[in-house]
Formats: sequence, C-alpha cells, structure tokens
Amino acid sequence: MKTLPLPKGFSAAGIAAGIKKKKKKDMALIVSETAAVSAGVFTTNQVKAAPVKWDIQVVEHDGVRAIVMNSGNANACTGAQGMADAEAMAALTAGGLNVNPLDVFVCSTGGIGKPLPMELIAGGVETLFKGLSPDGGLNAAEAMMTTDLASKTLAVDIELGGKPVRITGLAKGSGMIQPNMATMLAFILTDAAVEKHALQCALRLATDTSFNRITVDGDQSTNDSVIALANGQAGNEVLTQNSEDWGLFFQTLEKLLFELAMMIVKDGEGVTRVVTVRVIGAASNGEADEAARAVANSMLNKTAWAGKKPNWGRVMDAIGYSHAQVQENKVDITYDAVPAVRGGMPADTPEEELVKAVSQEAFTIHINLNLGGGQAVVYTCNCTEDYVRINKE
Amino acid sequence: MKTLPLPKGFSAAGIAAGIKKKKKKDMALIVSETAAVSAGVFTTNQVKAAPVKWDIQVVEHDGVRAIVMNSGNANACTGAQGMADAEAMAALTAGGLNVNPLDVFVCSTGGIGKPLPMELIAGGVETLFKGLSPDGGLNAAEAMMTTDLASKTLAVDIELGGKPVRITGLAKGSGMIQPNMATMLAFILTDAAVEKHALQCALRLATDTSFNRITVDGDQSTNDSVIALANGQAGNEVLTQNSEDWGLFFQTLEKLLFELAMMIVKDGEGVTRVVTVRVIGAASNGEADEAARAVANSMLNKTAWAGKKPNWGRVMDAIGYSHAQVQENKVDITYDAVPAVRGGMPADTPEEELVKAVSQEAFTIHINLNLGGGQAVVYTCNCTEDYVRINKE
Repeated sequence: MKTLPLPKGFSAAGIAAGIKKKKKKDMALIVSETAAVSAGVFTTNQVKAAPVKWDIQVVEHDGVRAIVMNSGNANACTGAQGMADAEAMAALTAGGLNVNPLDVFVCSTGGIGKPLPMELIAGGVETLFKGLSPDGGLNAAEAMMTTDLASKTLAVDIELGGKPVRITGLAKGSGMIQPNMATMLAFILTDAAVEKHALQCALRLATDTSFNRITVDGDQSTNDSVIALANGQAGNEVLTQNSEDWGLFFQTLEKLLFELAMMIVKDGEGVTRVVTVRVIGAASNGEADEAARAVANSMLNKTAWAGKKPNWGRVMDAIGYSHAQVQENKVDITYDAVPAVRGGMPADTPEEELVKAVSQEAFTIHINLNLGGGQAVVYTCNCTEDYVRINKE
Repeated sequence: MKTLPLPKGFSAAGIAAGIKKKKKKDMALIVSETAAVSAGVFTTNQVKAAPVKWDIQVVEHDGVRAIVMNSGNANACTGAQGMADAEAMAALTAGGLNVNPLDVFVCSTGGIGKPLPMELIAGGVETLFKGLSPDGGLNAAEAMMTTDLASKTLAVDIELGGKPVRITGLAKGSGMIQPNMATMLAFILTDAAVEKHALQCALRLATDTSFNRITVDGDQSTNDSVIALANGQAGNEVLTQNSEDWGLFFQTLEKLLFELAMMIVKDGEGVTRVVTVRVIGAASNGEADEAARAVANSMLNKTAWAGKKPNWGRVMDAIGYSHAQVQENKVDITYDAVPAVRGGMPADTPEEELVKAVSQEAFTIHINLNLGGGQAVVYTCNCTEDYVRINKE
C-alpha cells in the first residue's frame, strides 16, 4: 500500500523532530477540520503515563479536533512536570487550531522516566502543521513506530444510509504487548456521524475482541490507548445503537480493530509464528481465558513453537497450573485438525503430523476441558532468540 | 567437592539405564537401611505426574526405606498405564529390600506423555542395587540432572543433644522453575530422629521460604517433589516441635533448602545473573508477593538485566499491572544501595551507578510501595538468548 486513505475532513502528518536518533520519524499529528465525537480505551496499568491521564479528561467531553503524538519518550513516571508537559503539548497543538487544549488528545510512547524534550516537541508541532495533508496518514503511522518492523494501517469503505463512509485505523505495538492494554497505540478515524455514547460502547466492545485478546510477552504498559474520532463529514444520519445500520458499522469497526491487532502480533519482536489458543469446555468463560493465557504466555510453549516442537506436554502443564479448573483425564488437545491429546493422554497421531502443524506460519491449538460451556480465544506468537536480543538492547 | 557425605545408614547409587541417550546417568536409588520417617511437599499443578500421585500415598504412612528415581521421562499424562508403571517401579525396588511397595518413593523427571520404558527401568533397578554405597550420593545427584549444568548437593553436620547429626540434600531443577513447585526434585536425608508431624511441618515451612521463593521462567511443572527421610540412626532423642534442639534443626534444614534453591536459580537455563526482588510497604504480604513475582517473571525485566540495563521503568510497569495496590507517586526503588526511583520519579542518580549495580553477578532490587506493612522476597534470574535456544531444542 503506497498511501493510506483518510476519511473526509481528516489530514495527517508525520515528521522527525529529533526525539529519536538517526532522524527517524517521531512525531505525528492527526487533525479533523471539524469537531469530532471521540471515544477512548486506555491502559488499566496503575502506573499511567501523563498523556493517558490527560486523554482521560479529553474523552469526557465532545468536540475533539486533533491527536498529537510522539515516539521515543513515553512521558511516564515523570510526575507533575510530565502532566505539565502533556498539557503543554496539547496547548501547542490547540494553539495552531485556535481551539481549547482539551480538544486535543496527546499520546507518547518510548522510554520511561525521562522528561519530554519540550523544545523539540514545540518545534515538531510547528513542523507538523506545515506538513498536514490528506495523504499524510502513512507518515503519521511511521512516526508511531518504536521497535515495530512495519507500520500497521488499514482503511475500509462502507455505505451507511446511502452515504459512503470510511473507517481508517493506524496502530503501533511490538514488545510489552498483552491486552488491557500494552505498549500499543491505535487511532481509529471515521467520517461517519456517530452518537458519542454509541461510539464509546462500540470501541470498548471491539477492543475487547481484538487488542485485548492478543499477547506477545504478557507485559502490560503504562501508555496504551485506543482512540476513535468520528467527525460526521460523511453526512449520514447520526448513528446510535438503535440505527438500522449500527450492525454494519460495528462489525466493520470490529473487523478493522481485529486486523490491526493481528498485525501487531505478527510484528511481535522476533516473531516467526502466530498461534491461536482456543479453549472450550471450561467451567466458565473467565476460566477459559485463564487457561488460554497460561498457555499463550508460557515461555516453555513459546520457545517450543519457535523450535517447531508440538510439545503438548507443556500445554497440559500450563493449563494445569492456570487458575482454570482442569481434570487431567478429560482434556482434549488438537493442533489445527491433528489430534494431540485425548482424555489427557497422547492421541494416536504420528509425531510428524503434529510437527507439520506447528511448523506453519500460523496454527491453532484447540483445547477442550470438557467440563462446561466456558470458552475463550487468545492470539499469540512464538518467542525466538531475537526477542531476547531486541529487548536486551 | 569430590564426595557427598550421606547421613548414617543411608546409601545411594546413580547409573545409566539407557533411558537418556549418550549413556548419561538417568536412574538413582537412595536407601535407608532402617525404616525412616518421611515428609513430602508436592506440585500444586492440577496435572500431576503418576509418581507424584504415588508418593502422596507413600508419605501418608511411616517407615519409608527408599527413593527410586529416573530422569529422561516424566511419566506424566500417561493415564492408568503411568500409575501402573510408577507402582511397578516401587514394587521392583521394594522387592530388592523385601519390603512393601508403599515403603518406596518414586520420582520421574523429563519429557511428558511417553510411557516409561519398563524393561530399562527393571534392569536399572537391578544395577542400582549392585551399586549402592555410602559414597554413591554424587552419582545419584548426577542421575537426577536433565538440562542442569551442574548437580546440586549440600551436607551439613550439627549436634543435637550431644549426638552428631547430618542433613544431606540432593536437588535438580533448571527450566520450568517457579514455586509451588517446578520441574525440580529435592531429596533431604538425615540420620536425626524426628517425629513425623514435626518433620512434615518443618519441610513445608522450609520449602515455602526456599524452593517456593524462586522463579526462573514462571512455569510450574507436573512432577515437582521435595522429599525428606529421617532414619533416626544418629541416636538423638526424637525431635518434636517442643524439643530444645528444634530451633537448631529447623534452621539448619531451612538454610540447607535455601542454599539448594539458590543453586537451582544460578543454574537456570542460560542464566548469567541472579536477581533478588524484595518488596516492602505493600498493603499485605500477599500483595507484596504479587508485585515481586510480576517483576521477577516479566520478560522485559529479565531481558533488560541480561543487557545490563537498569531500566527501572519496566519495574514500575510490572508492579503497576500486578494485582498489588500501587500508588505511583509513593514508589521507591533501589538497586542494592543505589536509589533509582523516589516517589515514582527518577532519583538523582548517575545512570552509570545503576548500570554498575545491574552488571553484577547478583544484585537486589528493593521496592518500597510505602502503603503498608506487607513484604515478600523472590529470587530470580535474567533471561538470555541461551534460554530460548535450550528450550527450542
């Protein structure tokens, strides 16, 4: 994809402000030319970065005009100065638009515990305004990257009540990835007209079935944010949860978030293999989730997958120490369509078939606990020496 | 250490029975010439290996005579056949001693889901009996090893009521290590006379402050067992928790288990650095434990330590997503004696001093949540590319 189509009325820019070394892009600006309805889902980490605290105030009111972001510095664990800097970053951007600072979302991602270099930020905001363009989406996505190998973007066109509507997503995330959220940022832009409460519900639900179902390393960061802006320029009748078109809008949003989430897993640090862990038959959905996450976050499983080893014993082990109720002699495990475990014991399957299944770029481990109706799915990846190398550096 | 002194009345052997490749030692036998009081602490994993299920019956009665063990096969997820095999392994050993199978502990460690090669086991038991010797301790310890780089043994001599008493420990464990327990085995032998209930309490308590405080990779295995045998041949008055000498015996036992546990951490797969994570000021001891384990098990922290990076932001991040209550602006973090964080923000310490602290072979991270009186300590290690390489293979 050479360009990223933005919805009507949106423009974007991405530049190198000097925060990162080697002249890499490190600041982005997204502007809606008219006030947009906003929604946000933020990290549940008790240690929240200053911009997250700022954005929680922004999302409370209507009429947002911009998102300004920087990579290379998380503005986390920076105390009162950090809050002042996040607000100043919003104010600088608001100044360029002649609006209130609370009309501007601020996002930061990068290292923790260093004050934002405000001179560079100020210069960056100025340069960003000069570069704003309807074609600036890819530059903005590039400026969001930290250890990401590739930028993550997607745009989908639909029709709502006869009006063409676009939803565009930009995301970043690679290490420190586990739901609820992780060092990940995602911006969802649409020209649809959407009622604020409905947009917040939709974003929350779609986040729960996408970003909150992926895990790379089980770590959860201080800065994760998913922000949606809907500026209504498509001219459709304002969508509510009762609208005839609500289903289409929500499903499109959900699919877009899911695709972005999968891009993040595939781009996990050092990842060569995407693994879907699906648990059914648990005593409850919550317990299914516990079992799936225990498997997905187990280093012994992640390294086995890196070595193209089925090693279902490590799956049995992980569900056994998870908080899910497990009866060993009831457990069935299948890799894609290849049976590995039946009733807690080895299925009569030639080892080569299992090896073939786990050697694919993507495969699914189906775990049936055969105890109840609880189910859950988690998307994860293998762990290679490269993950360790990248995170040492 | 060239030999491992066993307590009076104990003999041991370790041999290669052909279960492992390359003629590595893979079976061990420890025998007490008189009936011993026994105690045991076993994995809390819901998926328990057959020998663990067997041993839970053995520990219920008095008069144990032997421990027989194999490496190279965990006899886990092996169903009814696995239980029959564990019992047969006990019976073969009991036959050599002319005692009841329930007088024999059985331990297995290695791969999951393959039936025990019972012909090799039977031949092995026969050979083990021929090799039994008071000098066989080191051979037995060697036969316990899987990916361990070194065997883990220790013997301590004390005097109880004027009688010389010896406590000898043999342990194994490297990957899949996290308390409650892990793929670890430890055998504690003593010629002290100890009342059964007191021995069980002492082993439980000492395990909680040693093996249950270490974590290499957060995985918990199906086979972990700590077994103690006390045959009373030292001739001391039978120890109870009311004995004058109880304190000395318990402290010696606790110290011995702690030293064995630290040997396991140091020998973690690919480990180059041992890290003590100490949390104080938590709302409760339980919350302190949650915070300490979140830090100790975070891959981002473990890889940072591998890279000699203090990266206290990853410590803040981990306590923030732990289940412990955290108030960001109250948190103090110190590496050994070097302040890193004060009130949730960077302490005024030159980066070089922090780098120096985390570059040591062993260091302590002190975390004060400043919220209450809860405290906990966890012993862990860094994670290098070698961990991934070893577990891929």
